[in-house]
Amino acid sequence: MTLPPFSCACPEKGLAPAVGDRADYYRWLFFAAGPVEQAITNCQLGWTPTAEQKKGVGYGCYDDVINTLEQAVKEKRFIASHAFSAVDIYTGGQIDWGLRFGTVPQRPAFVDYITRLRERPAYKKAQEIDSALVAAM
Amino acid sequence: MTLPPFSCACPEKGLAPAVGDRADYYRWLFFAAGPVEQAITNCQLGWTPTAEQKKGVGYGCYDDVINTLEQAVKEKRFIASHAFSAVDIYTGGQIDWGLRFGTVPQRPAFVDYITRLRERPAYKKAQEIDSALVAAM
Repeated sequence: MTLPPFSCACPEKGLAPAVGDRADYYRWLFFAAGPVEQAITNCQLGWTPTAEQKKGVGYGCYDDVINTLEQAVKEKRFIASHAFSAVDIYTGGQIDWGLRFGTVPQRPAFVDYITRLRERPAYKKAQEIDSALVAAM
Repeated sequence: MTLPPFSCACPEKGLAPAVGDRADYYRWLFFAAGPVEQAITNCQLGWTPTAEQKKGVGYGCYDDVINTLEQAVKEKRFIASHAFSAVDIYTGGQIDWGLRFGTVPQRPAFVDYITRLRERPAYKKAQEIDSALVAAM
């Protein structure tokens, strides 16, 4: 996870909110690294907690995690605030990948949010670089 | 996860390393929030990835995670550096709890590290506050 230290150390890149305004930023970075990753992996493997097991499972269940994530991308233009930040690269990346490969459901809030990300010039440029690398393989 | 934004916003508390020196600090915070949490939960529920499933599981398996965590606490006095930081509260808390309740094995590196944490005056004071609250219940 090189994004958070990079964003901290290079404030001129504008990838982290101001030092005193990082609650949502960290909230969604850790939510993605923990519950989202765990819920998606376990769901893919068919490991679904029963109501009894849910009491001991930090993320609850896949539906809880997806519903919470949906609220996060519904409320604002980007996840941590109305400005783009590193959490959109990481958590947004998980949603983007999930929509492509079916691990995240095609709900309008997710599709709208990812459309906002895909429209960014930096996203398009990164895709061009990736595509050129794939073509050269 | 209130520790990282608090540590960022209140540098006078000395809970985060200097801004340009946070790679290990974030590495182990995210390692604990993701792989450690996921490996321990799944292990407790008897959800063990097969060799084939491991290829799609970010944390690998419980043993991989525990061995990696053991190296982290072996190399330095505290996890991110020789100085105590918020990662010792969070990741250290998971190891401390794990040793008490059997979700982390009693390896010497873990026991030595937790002994260093338990000897800190702030740890003792927090335990006293907790014990008083339990007694008053």
